[in-house]
Amino acid sequence: MSVEKRTKSIDLSHHLSELSKARTTSPLKGLQKYFSQPGILSLAGGLPSPAYFPISDVSANVLIPDSFALVPTESSTSFSWLWKLFGSHTSTSEKTQGVTIPKYSANDGDINLAHSLQYGPSVAQQQLQVFLREFTSEVYRPAFEDWSVLIDTGNTDGWSRAVTTLCNPGEGVLCEEWTYPSALASILPLNIQPVPVPMDGVGMKSDALENLLSQWDPVSRQMPRPHVMYIVPVGQNPSGSTMSITRKKQIYDVCVKYDVIIVEDDPYYFLQLGTYIFKEDRSSGATPSGRPSPKESKRFVSTLTPSFLNFDYQGRVIRLDTFSKTIAPGSRLGWFTCNPLFAERLERQGETTTQAPCGFGQSIITKILTHWSYDGYIRWLRGIRTEYQQRRNFFVDCLAEEFHLQPMPADTVADIWQGCIVYQASSKVKTIAEKHATQNLTMLSFVPPVAGMFVWMKLHLDQHPSFSPGDENALEMKLWTKLAENGVLFAPGWMFSAKELTGDTDHADSGHFRVSFSNVEFPDLKKAVTIFGRVIREFFEEDL
Amino acid sequence: MSVEKRTKSIDLSHHLSELSKARTTSPLKGLQKYFSQPGILSLAGGLPSPAYFPISDVSANVLIPDSFALVPTESSTSFSWLWKLFGSHTSTSEKTQGVTIPKYSANDGDINLAHSLQYGPSVAQQQLQVFLREFTSEVYRPAFEDWSVLIDTGNTDGWSRAVTTLCNPGEGVLCEEWTYPSALASILPLNIQPVPVPMDGVGMKSDALENLLSQWDPVSRQMPRPHVMYIVPVGQNPSGSTMSITRKKQIYDVCVKYDVIIVEDDPYYFLQLGTYIFKEDRSSGATPSGRPSPKESKRFVSTLTPSFLNFDYQGRVIRLDTFSKTIAPGSRLGWFTCNPLFAERLERQGETTTQAPCGFGQSIITKILTHWSYDGYIRWLRGIRTEYQQRRNFFVDCLAEEFHLQPMPADTVADIWQGCIVYQASSKVKTIAEKHATQNLTMLSFVPPVAGMFVWMKLHLDQHPSFSPGDENALEMKLWTKLAENGVLFAPGWMFSAKELTGDTDHADSGHFRVSFSNVEFPDLKKAVTIFGRVIREFFEEDL
Repeated sequence: MSVEKRTKSIDLSHHLSELSKARTTSPLKGLQKYFSQPGILSLAGGLPSPAYFPISDVSANVLIPDSFALVPTESSTSFSWLWKLFGSHTSTSEKTQGVTIPKYSANDGDINLAHSLQYGPSVAQQQLQVFLREFTSEVYRPAFEDWSVLIDTGNTDGWSRAVTTLCNPGEGVLCEEWTYPSALASILPLNIQPVPVPMDGVGMKSDALENLLSQWDPVSRQMPRPHVMYIVPVGQNPSGSTMSITRKKQIYDVCVKYDVIIVEDDPYYFLQLGTYIFKEDRSSGATPSGRPSPKESKRFVSTLTPSFLNFDYQGRVIRLDTFSKTIAPGSRLGWFTCNPLFAERLERQGETTTQAPCGFGQSIITKILTHWSYDGYIRWLRGIRTEYQQRRNFFVDCLAEEFHLQPMPADTVADIWQGCIVYQASSKVKTIAEKHATQNLTMLSFVPPVAGMFVWMKLHLDQHPSFSPGDENALEMKLWTKLAENGVLFAPGWMFSAKELTGDTDHADSGHFRVSFSNVEFPDLKKAVTIFGRVIREFFEEDL
Repeated sequence: MSVEKRTKSIDLSHHLSELSKARTTSPLKGLQKYFSQPGILSLAGGLPSPAYFPISDVSANVLIPDSFALVPTESSTSFSWLWKLFGSHTSTSEKTQGVTIPKYSANDGDINLAHSLQYGPSVAQQQLQVFLREFTSEVYRPAFEDWSVLIDTGNTDGWSRAVTTLCNPGEGVLCEEWTYPSALASILPLNIQPVPVPMDGVGMKSDALENLLSQWDPVSRQMPRPHVMYIVPVGQNPSGSTMSITRKKQIYDVCVKYDVIIVEDDPYYFLQLGTYIFKEDRSSGATPSGRPSPKESKRFVSTLTPSFLNFDYQGRVIRLDTFSKTIAPGSRLGWFTCNPLFAERLERQGETTTQAPCGFGQSIITKILTHWSYDGYIRWLRGIRTEYQQRRNFFVDCLAEEFHLQPMPADTVADIWQGCIVYQASSKVKTIAEKHATQNLTMLSFVPPVAGMFVWMKLHLDQHPSFSPGDENALEMKLWTKLAENGVLFAPGWMFSAKELTGDTDHADSGHFRVSFSNVEFPDLKKAVTIFGRVIREFFEEDL
């Protein structure tokens, strides 16, 4: 891959959709100089007086950045379920510090409600913009110089704006063969179709992508060759796969070759959990006492797999970041990082839809981030990462207690897990079938995820006693329903199938559950796995 | 007009756009029963644990509902400019009460951050939904029974979602000939054109609407007869006009006849300011001491001009409400009121764009509203209304001090003011021209608005010494620029012209300024009018 700085000579304007090109800039553009005159008396806008905002100040008690340990230990387990059990809802064990946002700030430039709650352009408030630029620069280190950061109301808004900025009706969007259903629900009504690309254990396959694009026939496909990709490279939803840097570079190079814009939806980036190790082999350590520091931040950031931005020498990546997983989903706050041409069009679109994100949310989150500082926020992210690591470990530990787990290299199991160690799960209790058989029955397999919130289970439905090819979907739903009737909900795999939507019904790929370990309390995770173990054993004994 | 309850037999589904019809419902729909099972262990969703939301609680000091007087008096003037002059930004004179939203609430159903900041459906949080339904029912009293209330992120989002739900590319939207530029910026890139309807002093003309629709020729117009109307009936932006109930009913009946859906964008509804009376003729009263009470609320609501919803017996109105003018623009919170068929489609659209509005904003605003209660909020709105009344009065008083104002019935002045008393402004200082003439020169005319934030000035450019027909736009911009160079910004009229956009350049209509009295402090309002007086006098003396 040749590395060179993006220059203005690389023209990406042909990627803009007709809709996006048609968006008008503000009619005031030509008069802008008057609006920025110091001391001007503006009776031009339709702004309410901030005197009538019914709030003198907003305060929050904010957790300290090092609230959570950095090494998974028993003591770092989330005890919120315990508080609930004992009827205490005040979470007295949380260490917090108070922050306040006044309506009028004493110093110019300090964040204040009179400004945060007023109408404004569809960009971030100034302090937040500064923070996001610093953060993006330090963490993602984009490979081109003139990148822009633009706020949005989270990645759902981000993807919706990106696809309407880039795609015309009748076009297709490259995506992983299993993908986030909401991303597809956004494009289908616009008459934009998913174009699924096969995956293996580290995500979208670059050779499959190359084949698909090189052999693209617009006539038989009834659509032009796709020029936009939607991809979730870290802790992929639903498969939990995480793309290696090598694969990312291969994908990027194919995208350069075929002139494809990459929309990198990366909500789980900071939930990079490392490799799962069986409980008995794990060494439990103590959290280093180091306080948040630039050195610690740098060290942590260097352990994270790089974003596509990091080698995007042509500016063809639109990265979507969100505070949903690192602060809270209700923040409805995220940001684009991309070239300035796309950023300007995305901003215009914001002006006629969401305007700026909520001023309450923006001001509170900005206050938290600036109160913590960049290094504090990195420390917070490290703690959160460790918490989810603990959850991932606990959940897989539960599976290891419930099932006999056999780790094996992928090539001996299934193509979909290539590049990973696959855990094959069989019953610890010999089933009726097994009593008559010579080997253990593999009921499911999975790869303990190295990032994100999900375990993606491949159900070995062909091992079901009444299996015939083509039964996969029916059996998947039979097991799902049995499980639900026993009080446990997993997400059925078919929901995430991009191929299903394109009418490409390759049943041999079917039979998955996406299981989230992100939210349920530990005792309930344990209970759910126990129920699942019983139900799936009964399921594989059926009709015997 | 025949009044009858809307029944299911009135089918409005043919109004849905192709895009809206193509939106999918959640793929989980069929499995929903399992998701609502009590005690179910759900590992299906991708929810982060609320233990990791870094906020223990959010508090706010909230103004009391009767912070502002109900009768405009000297003492009820907003003194926020005084605080600023004296360097005090703490607004110590504000009476506030503290409210707190904890992460975990002690009682089920109490608003809490663990819920407010979590992912959820694209509808309001439950307590807010209850409040909005009660509010809509009490204040707007819709004429049909099965109306729905659906939250959005403010009226810009609301209009954007409404128009894409209703209109296909190539269609037109009926609107006032002068209208909100952002509303047009939303539709133009979708290849949806404005179809301007002539106005008079009370807004869109029903006879002009009837003529337009009855004579509609799809061939010469190159578009089907419009089936959607965008209208701002109260304190219209930019004209400041407010529609009488008689006119509203006439418009509604025409819409029934030609099967038009009315999108009622009504942000200024609670800024119904009453008729302007010259300062010397006003009696200043004292605010009645009555505390917020159901009786007072009912009495106030009965003084407000009814919404289109109030006689919408067919469910063909989508009303857009917002907290932007009554709480703060940065709330980015509003709601649709409409029939359930449209509400369901609008909700689906929210799911793939904004999702739910920001949880910080929703929880704080819900807490304020429930803390105040319905009657408290009505009291707050009455105070805000009086504040803007005071501002309107002060601004027109300034004009009366700067100019000689002559109130006259509209039919003696101009068609555009029909139905109102028009104030004709001439110089108090005799201009050079007038010294040679026999009568005062009318430089501008306006109708003191009975609602909203704006005075719409008609510039009598044909009185300019160097005027030739066709010069209107150039002269408007010449005066605007002169004014800006002297430190005062008004909004130029051409920005609001829907006709201009359709290529219908009827210059005789040109020459307006929209002047906002909503935000600038009183001394600056006074200063701006003084500068304006000097500049416009010099302008009309030019070339002599």
